[in-house]
Amino acid sequence: MSKFKNISPTIIVIFGATGDLAKRKLFPAFQNLFLDGRLDEKFKIIALGRAEKSDDEFRSYVVENLNTFSRRTANCDERTQEFISHISYLRHDIDKEESYYQLDSKLKDIDAGFGERANRLFYLSITPSFITTISAYMKKIGLAANEKQDRIIIEKPFGYDKTSAIALNEMLSQTFKEEQIYRIDHYLGKETVQNILAFRFGNSMFEPLWSRNFIDFVQITVAEEVGVEERGGFYEGVGALKDMIQNHLLQILCMTAMEAPASLRADDIRNRKADVLKSIRRIKPDEVDHYIVRGQYDAGFIKGNPVPGYRQDKGIAPDSNTETYVAMKIYLDNWRWQGIPFYLRTGKRMEEKQSSIIIQFKPVPHSSFSYGKEGMTPNRLIINIQPAMDIKLQFMTKKPGLSLSLRPAEMVFDYFSCSTMSPEAYETLIGDALAGDPTLFMRWDQVEEAWDAIETIQQVWKNTPPTNFPNYKAGSWGPEEADELLARQGHKWVSNTQEIEKISTK
Amino acid sequence: MSKFKNISPTIIVIFGATGDLAKRKLFPAFQNLFLDGRLDEKFKIIALGRAEKSDDEFRSYVVENLNTFSRRTANCDERTQEFISHISYLRHDIDKEESYYQLDSKLKDIDAGFGERANRLFYLSITPSFITTISAYMKKIGLAANEKQDRIIIEKPFGYDKTSAIALNEMLSQTFKEEQIYRIDHYLGKETVQNILAFRFGNSMFEPLWSRNFIDFVQITVAEEVGVEERGGFYEGVGALKDMIQNHLLQILCMTAMEAPASLRADDIRNRKADVLKSIRRIKPDEVDHYIVRGQYDAGFIKGNPVPGYRQDKGIAPDSNTETYVAMKIYLDNWRWQGIPFYLRTGKRMEEKQSSIIIQFKPVPHSSFSYGKEGMTPNRLIINIQPAMDIKLQFMTKKPGLSLSLRPAEMVFDYFSCSTMSPEAYETLIGDALAGDPTLFMRWDQVEEAWDAIETIQQVWKNTPPTNFPNYKAGSWGPEEADELLARQGHKWVSNTQEIEKISTK
Repeated sequence: MSKFKNISPTIIVIFGATGDLAKRKLFPAFQNLFLDGRLDEKFKIIALGRAEKSDDEFRSYVVENLNTFSRRTANCDERTQEFISHISYLRHDIDKEESYYQLDSKLKDIDAGFGERANRLFYLSITPSFITTISAYMKKIGLAANEKQDRIIIEKPFGYDKTSAIALNEMLSQTFKEEQIYRIDHYLGKETVQNILAFRFGNSMFEPLWSRNFIDFVQITVAEEVGVEERGGFYEGVGALKDMIQNHLLQILCMTAMEAPASLRADDIRNRKADVLKSIRRIKPDEVDHYIVRGQYDAGFIKGNPVPGYRQDKGIAPDSNTETYVAMKIYLDNWRWQGIPFYLRTGKRMEEKQSSIIIQFKPVPHSSFSYGKEGMTPNRLIINIQPAMDIKLQFMTKKPGLSLSLRPAEMVFDYFSCSTMSPEAYETLIGDALAGDPTLFMRWDQVEEAWDAIETIQQVWKNTPPTNFPNYKAGSWGPEEADELLARQGHKWVSNTQEIEKISTK
Repeated sequence: MSKFKNISPTIIVIFGATGDLAKRKLFPAFQNLFLDGRLDEKFKIIALGRAEKSDDEFRSYVVENLNTFSRRTANCDERTQEFISHISYLRHDIDKEESYYQLDSKLKDIDAGFGERANRLFYLSITPSFITTISAYMKKIGLAANEKQDRIIIEKPFGYDKTSAIALNEMLSQTFKEEQIYRIDHYLGKETVQNILAFRFGNSMFEPLWSRNFIDFVQITVAEEVGVEERGGFYEGVGALKDMIQNHLLQILCMTAMEAPASLRADDIRNRKADVLKSIRRIKPDEVDHYIVRGQYDAGFIKGNPVPGYRQDKGIAPDSNTETYVAMKIYLDNWRWQGIPFYLRTGKRMEEKQSSIIIQFKPVPHSSFSYGKEGMTPNRLIINIQPAMDIKLQFMTKKPGLSLSLRPAEMVFDYFSCSTMSPEAYETLIGDALAGDPTLFMRWDQVEEAWDAIETIQQVWKNTPPTNFPNYKAGSWGPEEADELLARQGHKWVSNTQEIEKISTK
């Protein structure tokens, strides 16, 4: 807990405070940090938005949203009222220099009230295209001039390809030191994702098995039931590769495949993650179709309800070639993982929402046991990230009865069976940023390597539009080609919810 | 299931059919084998006893006992009546030759009725001292003369030390071939004990960890709550070393430590078990006190109820030196286990009934994690044999919350969560004996090696009576010296029922 000391006084500045992310995630996170005592009395939140609003109007808006989106049941109690009183609203026009001077004088007023220069955390909850402008004005006026005290949180996507990411980073680095930049990937704040590190390196019995010697393949799935919803305008031209693979899935890959860090210090952990990204085998343009499958959903059914295809969704071109599904095979060229496929897949309008890591172990080298009609099930370790948050171990056991035959069974550890008050990802991440702990944020080299790892795919896809879109039905598990991708190696996608048949006699 | 073919017709002869074992275990086992279709219509049971009884009298006695001791709820249905009709009673005097001639003619009558020479299974449910006499008469009259068709089941103890066991075996071998002799250790028939083999060799993920490289120590406990009850006369002069360690615990040790068998054929498995017994480090007489602790219970409390000490129990000498508790450290001198202690303990009047195997893994080689007040818990695999029948994996997981600290958790596989109709050990074992499968029975060399492994201890104890008996209270976990035995190596006895604190926030 010691890392949460010395963060007082703090001023949090939210660009885009009237937006969707702020409403759903940021204010609930700040509220909970306050209620949990992680925010000292000496903190202020300055909410920036384009509209004209009084402090009271904005505070009422926040309270209303907390009632809907906060994990706390008692949102309107005294302490929450106290939290709300720390928020003030400032009309802000991103393009206007005077807005920044107004912000500057507001910051200085608060500092004066505190009697000292407060730490500053700038949260850029805005469209990426505004980053350059904001950054330039901040530099000009010196809003984040204190390298030790001032930090900036930036949402993904960080650029849209390697070249643009490098350009963006060069621009940012004129205003901020790398140590001041907190590139957020909210997946890394999830308890179940953080637990991967604890599970692997806090126990002695898994790590010896965690290599090409004993693992057959690894499968990482981030499947969504939703389509593009209201975000069609954003999603068009982005697609699953940039929206999901480049960040969330590659980050989970890093957690799963990384070597043990020298310590839990931020750079030790991020060094080992960067190593994984560096060791991703870069494929040649003519290999793209062999390693990666893209898909786009057609109309179909989600839990029995008809839903339109992607091209019929709001804000989507009727001949759109944006992919809503990607499945890919990755090899890591290093000692631990040589030759072991990591299968990644992500998609919208999948059969069910599911983020999971499945480690499938090699078959037994020799077996004389007989198996029931279910056949032999390989040993599997299943780490469910969401919505299920558990770890399952699937293994074979003796079928009760007079003969020595086997059948599959599983043991389960439910991460939240006894805990409903666990922090949300944003709470964890903002708490870390306030405390100056960048462990769970992406260092520049990680971002660059992640873009580099998919660069060839981006280029090939740009030059060769898909000819078969839409190629999977909403409510399915994606295009057939994704099954073939694994079948070529004698593998199959494992559904983590596919129940292991319970043991029963006859 | 194929192994259950071709066992028809069969005649089962039970010596000691009016005894306790027959009442509680054997008749329920035969009943269930019949109800499960494992006994063909062409079978007869000849129950031998000293008293004069009619068939009907004995059948009523069996039905009455089935109502009490059988796992089937409907004991008196039509099929059970049918089962009962296969039983006949024969007055038998073990010392009288004419009794054997009567048995011979009864067997021949049944063969005549079947129209062929039936298979014969002789179950010696009698005091060991009668074995010689019975064997001699059987040889003289040729009751089990057909080496392929005739088998004998002998209860433990097989002898009372190595010399007597060799003598007994030599005597038996004049009447029976080794292949005809089924030495029963009912622990080997337990589902959870059989599952050890399935668990180890039906899965690929445990065996790589199953060695001195990753395991810190192994602990095998067979604890009883009961005292000597009505068996004082038998127990006096036998003691825990001969009654429990030499057979049950060493057999469990074999299952836990054995190499993978070439196949599941009886002799392949028994070869690997015998290897374990051979590799048990033989200790010198002056090392006995260093490796083994003996104990005898004093008066105490079991679940709050006062119980007398061993010396006050019925049939026990007031200055008895019979041990009711043994804890010992065993080293296996082989490649897999060199230097890894196997701690075995067994006792009467323990705090609770518990048979379990606990595999404790080595600590993590390096950890930067912080631990809660519970501290670091080593990874453990706990195999509960009885009364709990489950497998637990204890590991560390992230404590939900904003910091990366760890706490212990566990996953559980309950072997019988969905199965209440699993066979009893005796049912499994008798079924195997009928089918001619000796896998779960002890071959002569196993028995001999097991006696050899404890010979020095027996000799030293005989020459140096304990001076501190009684040395543990009924209802405790044994004498303090047993804790010291482990403490010398920095180890502790693990209670498998000691609940891992459930995860909860604050």
